[in-house]
Amino acid sequence: MDVELVSIGDELLLGFTIDTNAAFFAREAAALGIRVVRRSTVGDGAEQIAAGVREALDRTGAVITSGGLGPTADDLTKPSIAALFGRGMYRDEAIVDSLRARWKARGWPGELPAANTMQAMIPEGATILENRHGSAPGIWLEDARGRWVAMLPGVPREFRGMTQDTLLPRIAARGAAGRVIRSRTLRTTGIAESAIADALGPYAKDPAGVALAYLPGWEGVDLRLTVRDVDAVEADALLGAAAALVREKVGHWVYGEDDADLVALVLEALRARGMRIGVAESCTGGMLGMRLTAIPGSSDVVVGGLIAYDNAVKVAQLGVRESTLTAHGAVSEETAREMATGARARLGVEVAVSITGVAGPGGGTPEKPVGTFCVGVDVRGEVRSLRTSGVGDRHEVRQRATQAALNLVRKALEG
Amino acid sequence: MDVELVSIGDELLLGFTIDTNAAFFAREAAALGIRVVRRSTVGDGAEQIAAGVREALDRTGAVITSGGLGPTADDLTKPSIAALFGRGMYRDEAIVDSLRARWKARGWPGELPAANTMQAMIPEGATILENRHGSAPGIWLEDARGRWVAMLPGVPREFRGMTQDTLLPRIAARGAAGRVIRSRTLRTTGIAESAIADALGPYAKDPAGVALAYLPGWEGVDLRLTVRDVDAVEADALLGAAAALVREKVGHWVYGEDDADLVALVLEALRARGMRIGVAESCTGGMLGMRLTAIPGSSDVVVGGLIAYDNAVKVAQLGVRESTLTAHGAVSEETAREMATGARARLGVEVAVSITGVAGPGGGTPEKPVGTFCVGVDVRGEVRSLRTSGVGDRHEVRQRATQAALNLVRKALEG
Repeated sequence: MDVELVSIGDELLLGFTIDTNAAFFAREAAALGIRVVRRSTVGDGAEQIAAGVREALDRTGAVITSGGLGPTADDLTKPSIAALFGRGMYRDEAIVDSLRARWKARGWPGELPAANTMQAMIPEGATILENRHGSAPGIWLEDARGRWVAMLPGVPREFRGMTQDTLLPRIAARGAAGRVIRSRTLRTTGIAESAIADALGPYAKDPAGVALAYLPGWEGVDLRLTVRDVDAVEADALLGAAAALVREKVGHWVYGEDDADLVALVLEALRARGMRIGVAESCTGGMLGMRLTAIPGSSDVVVGGLIAYDNAVKVAQLGVRESTLTAHGAVSEETAREMATGARARLGVEVAVSITGVAGPGGGTPEKPVGTFCVGVDVRGEVRSLRTSGVGDRHEVRQRATQAALNLVRKALEG
Repeated sequence: MDVELVSIGDELLLGFTIDTNAAFFAREAAALGIRVVRRSTVGDGAEQIAAGVREALDRTGAVITSGGLGPTADDLTKPSIAALFGRGMYRDEAIVDSLRARWKARGWPGELPAANTMQAMIPEGATILENRHGSAPGIWLEDARGRWVAMLPGVPREFRGMTQDTLLPRIAARGAAGRVIRSRTLRTTGIAESAIADALGPYAKDPAGVALAYLPGWEGVDLRLTVRDVDAVEADALLGAAAALVREKVGHWVYGEDDADLVALVLEALRARGMRIGVAESCTGGMLGMRLTAIPGSSDVVVGGLIAYDNAVKVAQLGVRESTLTAHGAVSEETAREMATGARARLGVEVAVSITGVAGPGGGTPEKPVGTFCVGVDVRGEVRSLRTSGVGDRHEVRQRATQAALNLVRKALEG
């Protein structure tokens, strides 16, 4: 079934707060076959709330709001929507009592402030949605035609908790159960989005009738396959067929699926071979070392490394030859290879990986434009290197360089 | 003036991607008196895009879209909106040429894939918005009644860059600005949110009648002062008075304002003193080196460093004494001090900074719980160190450790 989300709050419109509730709801809902077809964000004003919810009701008839249920005067969600449904409001004494009990239990000073009793005002004919995660209860309002609005608090912890333990079960129970939206992602790196599309040819848009989305980023291009409105068994069959088609065409660049992390794959490969790794970084300045040590337990295979940002450090600490720097430049496969070999010897490890490049924005030349970088790897004396380039600002180029270095290690270990 | 944002993409609706572009635009626009009155997110489908944009045009008449300008078949923003305006599409050969040149400049293999030329399809009568941050140009479409849609790429780097250098100036030039929403942020580090509130006392909520928001993060606690609906001159006066009050109370912990970056401040301080710096990192694995080299031009003061993740590397590469590790442990001020001194000698620099800590989630002890870290700095033989702790997951603890190390350098240089 289809629903719309309306997020309420000036803070969201002003951009001071990033709305993560909507994304959370969409992911959770998809697994139950509930599809978010539109998201809107409106301000705190009564008219803005009423307009946003009215339009959503007219479009879809099933609306979840977040925010504006607090105890302060600018929390107008309930009265605005009650008016939209032509309902009055009443004060629910049971809620007032529970708010008082909660206030005492927290050991807060004095009596429950009058403002807080606003949270006990309920639209006539509404169903109260229990909130086990905070003080403001949720509200379910439905009209004679079965059109409904579910109002949840905007506090992420409360919104998420209520979504899982109260709202989604209620929506799912209204039907549409069994139909799901399911996705499967193939993660590629080292190939451009458009090159993938060309390689896939006729399968570029919807292999095996499954929608294919291209998600380019510094890690590479993720290929997300999505099926909707089918049962779970059919979904898996369709995704399996589509994934097989895509792998047949671009499998060479696929390093994993869904949440696969290239760092984790490299650490696993090292562990399986009883090898330890060290790094030698120039333009990335430590980013590769940081990524390799970002995963708990990496200390059994990662020993550390050298950040050779200055060429003098490349020579003194890594044993890169002056003649190599002079003949080929700091950004060259030759230098990358000597950096890797030097780091391996210096650190006494089986594997060393190196990066040197032009992160920009300055320092580019016609032969080596900004974004050019070279990576090298030395596995027990067997050295490989690669020269490539990445688009983006300084940060993104450095991210792409670390990804290319990790992928080179992965391929070198696979042999 | 009022505008609406329409974010386009199934990925956003499905919750696989968090939309940060809209928040970025809202913050930047507010400073120019441009107000975002509604945000919507629609799917990739032509009908969904057309419906979302049509409704926004009818409500507000000024619409910015993000996403759906890429080279793949599911990028339907341009044709959908062109149809909405009753315009055809033509292929702009100048754009095709620049795409070809770009492809060659990157040294990518073969010819520009046919798919990419989709980015050169332009609605008739549209104004092309230059994109200096990526390949897909932006599009400005306006009808006879002056209602307009600006189409930007969804890639955050491109959306943000174009918003600042192309779109906002164009919108602002259409006039109607005057009343502004303006903010000023004082950046603190090394002090807790609650301690700041206590120090501010009566000024904790709204110094000089200006709203004060506390924004805690791994960099420290930002104090954001905001005034709205006043003219620019009055806004600056109010913010100035409020900032002075806050600095009077907690100025000791303020390292800068607004976009001030602790790394940039440290690099400047080193440059001013003609000193160069190196790092010695354990638990952060290179994060500090990465941050110091994240700023273009850092190579004149940053030489590099050593990542001593394994204790054997601390001893062999930094000259930390086995006896120190045995007596005080790897996570100790003594070890941090020897790491800094060792790095300074090894790298031949005036300043070296070190970090060693328990990033977690494992490895904590009663004496040294997860989140405990020690930082050290050696400035020409004068050594300082600090032991502290940070909350959060592994990544956040490492971030807090790098910030504490940078702040120790800043204070050491200030003397």
